[in-house]
Amino acid sequence: MTKVNVGKSVMEANAEQAATLRSEWQSRELTVLNLISSPGSGKTALLEQTLEHFRGKLQMAVLVGDVQTENDANRLARHGFPVKQIITNGTCHLEAHMIEKHLPFVDTKGLDLLMIENVGNLVCPSSYDLGEDAKVVLLSTTEGEDKPLKYPAIFRRAEVAILTKTDLLPYLDFDVSAVRHNIDQIHAGIPMFRVSARTGDGLDEWLTWVETKVARKKHPDFHQTVR
Amino acid sequence: MTKVNVGKSVMEANAEQAATLRSEWQSRELTVLNLISSPGSGKTALLEQTLEHFRGKLQMAVLVGDVQTENDANRLARHGFPVKQIITNGTCHLEAHMIEKHLPFVDTKGLDLLMIENVGNLVCPSSYDLGEDAKVVLLSTTEGEDKPLKYPAIFRRAEVAILTKTDLLPYLDFDVSAVRHNIDQIHAGIPMFRVSARTGDGLDEWLTWVETKVARKKHPDFHQTVR
Repeated sequence: MTKVNVGKSVMEANAEQAATLRSEWQSRELTVLNLISSPGSGKTALLEQTLEHFRGKLQMAVLVGDVQTENDANRLARHGFPVKQIITNGTCHLEAHMIEKHLPFVDTKGLDLLMIENVGNLVCPSSYDLGEDAKVVLLSTTEGEDKPLKYPAIFRRAEVAILTKTDLLPYLDFDVSAVRHNIDQIHAGIPMFRVSARTGDGLDEWLTWVETKVARKKHPDFHQTVR
Repeated sequence: MTKVNVGKSVMEANAEQAATLRSEWQSRELTVLNLISSPGSGKTALLEQTLEHFRGKLQMAVLVGDVQTENDANRLARHGFPVKQIITNGTCHLEAHMIEKHLPFVDTKGLDLLMIENVGNLVCPSSYDLGEDAKVVLLSTTEGEDKPLKYPAIFRRAEVAILTKTDLLPYLDFDVSAVRHNIDQIHAGIPMFRVSARTGDGLDEWLTWVETKVARKKHPDFHQTVR
C-alpha cells in the first residue's frame, strides 16, 4: 500500500495564500463570502436572488467554481455583475491560489462584496481557507436532516447555515426542528435561515445578514441586530 | 505555491488493490455494485428497498462509507443483512484498501451480492476503482437537470443511472427529458431508471437490472432483457 503524506504542505501553502488574500481584502474593506453545499442544493439560485436584491445598492462580483462547464457563470452573468468561472478540471474544491489567479477579472477597488460559489461538495471545500470573511453552508430540505452529523466539518466551520427549498416541505418527510438540533450538536447556536429562492420566502433574513456583514467590514463598530 | 504530484502512485496502488479484489470476487461469482451520488440523493433509501426485495432470494451484504457517523449502517442493519460502516475520517471517497480492510466482516463465500454505498460526493468517488462490477450513479430530481454536464466523470464511468425522488416531480421545475438528454451527451444510451423509494414506483426496473447482473456473474451466458 502506498502511503503518501502531503496534506500538510499543500494546506500550509493554501493557508499562506489565503492570509495574503484576506489581508488585501481587509485593506479594501471588501467582504467575501464562500458558499458551500452539495450539488443541487441551490447555491446558484440563492446567488441570483442576492444579486437582484443588491442591484444598485452594492458593488458585487461572483467567482464560481465547477469541475466542468460554465453554465453557472452564464446563468449568473445575466444579472449584470462581473462573474468569472473557475473550472477545476476534476478537483473537488477551490483553493486560494485559484482565487488569486482568477481575481484580476474584476477591480476589487470599490467592490463591496465578492461571492464565491464553491464546487458542489460537502466534504473537500470545508478544508480550504480562501481568505473569506465567512463560509456559508447550504442544505436543502430534500437532503435529509442527518447531513450536519454526517458532514460535520463544514457545519463546524460555517458561520451561518441556510436551509433551502423550504417550498418543498409540504411534500417531504423533513423535520426542521431535527435539522436545527443536529446543527446545534456540531456548531451550537449558529444562525439557520430557512429560504425558498423560488418563492422568495425567508430571503429577508439572509439578505439582512449579508448587508450587516458588509456594513461591519466598512465600519467595524456597526451594529445591527439580525432578526 | 507548493505543487505536489502524487496522484499517479496513489491511483496505481488503488488500481492494483482493486484488481486483486475483482479477481477474488470473480472466483467467488460475487457481484459487487458501487453506489455513488451527492449527499441526500437517496442511496440508503434505495438500498433499504433493495435489501427488502431480495430477502430470502439472495445472500447480500452492505459496506457503507461515510465521513462520520454510523447512522446509515444502523439504518441498514435493521433489514437483517450483514452491514459494515467504513468511517473515512474526512476522506471524500472510498478506496480499494478500505474495502479490503473491512471486508472480513462477512464471509464472501456463498455471498451473491455486495452493495457498496460510497461517501456522498459526485466528484471524488468516481476516480477510485473498488473492484466493483459496476458503478451506479444516483441523481435526485431535486438536484437539477444540469448535473450530468457539471459532474461528467461519474456519469461517464457509471453503467446505469438512477433518477430518484420521482414522487416530487409534480412540485418541481424538473424536465426528465432534459436530464436524459444531458446524460446522453456524456454517456449515450446508458439505462436511466426513474424511481421513488418512498412510493416504490419504478423500482422493478432497477431490481430486474440487479438480478440480471447477479445471474450473469454466475452464468456468463445468462440472458434476460431488462425492460
